Amino acid sequence: MSVITIERKVLEKNDAIAEQNRDRFRAAGLFVMNLVSSPGAGKTSLVERTIEALRDRVRIGVIEGDVQTDLDAQRVARYGVPVVQIVTNGGCHLEARLVHDAIERLALDGLDLLIIENVGNLVCPANFDLGEAMKVVVISTTEGDDKPLKYPAMFREASVVVVNKSDLLPYVSCDVQALVSNALSVNPALRVFETSCTTGLGLPDWCDWIAQEAGRGHA
Amino acid sequence: MSVITIERKVLEKNDAIAEQNRDRFRAAGLFVMNLVSSPGAGKTSLVERTIEALRDRVRIGVIEGDVQTDLDAQRVARYGVPVVQIVTNGGCHLEARLVHDAIERLALDGLDLLIIENVGNLVCPANFDLGEAMKVVVISTTEGDDKPLKYPAMFREASVVVVNKSDLLPYVSCDVQALVSNALSVNPALRVFETSCTTGLGLPDWCDWIAQEAGRGHA
Repeated sequence: MSVITIERKVLEKNDAIAEQNRDRFRAAGLFVMNLVSSPGAGKTSLVERTIEALRDRVRIGVIEGDVQTDLDAQRVARYGVPVVQIVTNGGCHLEARLVHDAIERLALDGLDLLIIENVGNLVCPANFDLGEAMKVVVISTTEGDDKPLKYPAMFREASVVVVNKSDLLPYVSCDVQALVSNALSVNPALRVFETSCTTGLGLPDWCDWIAQEAGRGHA
Repeated sequence: MSVITIERKVLEKNDAIAEQNRDRFRAAGLFVMNLVSSPGAGKTSLVERTIEALRDRVRIGVIEGDVQTDLDAQRVARYGVPVVQIVTNGGCHLEARLVHDAIERLALDGLDLLIIENVGNLVCPANFDLGEAMKVVVISTTEGDDKPLKYPAMFREASVVVVNKSDLLPYVSCDVQALVSNALSVNPALRVFETSCTTGLGLPDWCDWIAQEAGRGHA
């Protein structure tokens, strides 16, 4: 029982700091996206393609969250955008406090869009508000169409689902219609994008939507 | 600080129950494997192919762990082996207590091999001993070759790594040699299998190894 109490306290404390982050993002007129998925669903590739497409019209910053290594920050830094790596040292999700510290190292007023790439984990990050405008869950076609039913919390907490790696559909047993229908059964309000970072399919729609959100000064 | 203390107590309590489970497995002469991976790496397909190949010579039982649904237990039950579904209701990993309760519903003395399929999560299950003889980590080629470096705890805790979905290699940017080399840099003692549950590649070696381990009465 004491564990449950502690967990609730951890979440309450996290939510309080998340609200502080949200206030800062709002003051800076910044659209902030918390990108979540299983390991290897393609979050970093999606970030790379998004920066390539948008960097001339949207000022983008990135926070990379990983259990270990700064490999993802290295990948993203090549595109010339400001990036901060958070290493959780075994931690299975980002917390608002870590983001609070990371944004000290970013000039928020000079950005329109902040992408926070969470630790690859389809379970734990669902519970932790970071102060974002919305969670975006990326699901790869290779993971199978049953995943929204098996990991519902993440799809319930997200506002957007990106079905990625659509180029692999001919080679895997994944029914995209079933996947989307399963996701919508958990959360009917989800906005859906279908993308391939290899062929580029779906990326223009995705990027146009982000540019629009970032232009709104959403937070 | 109090949270860290609680966490250590949770792990200590878990380990004590895991030892009880291990004693029971040993008494029953049972080889027990804790199968871990990201969501959608192919654990359930690997279990299905393994049962198909071995059911005439190895008596197999399965415990399925999922955040929600009994979809995996339904899949496995079709093969006529005893299966118990654990639903964690949001929990991000199996704990020894849950397995302790689940094995009450299995006739362990009538089994040679018990496969415990953990929740799809490459982070949290690494910390929780269930009483198994070994952890087997499944990694899909679609997840990318950097994952052992980014999620090292799981590869450190495992005794075996199965590189699955090798049939997709022509279509994804994954260097299997780099993947294996990254895994071995984290844990040089790892035994490595490369499999495809679609083409069957590598499954005979994998199954022969399991049959051998199960024949030893390992626990």
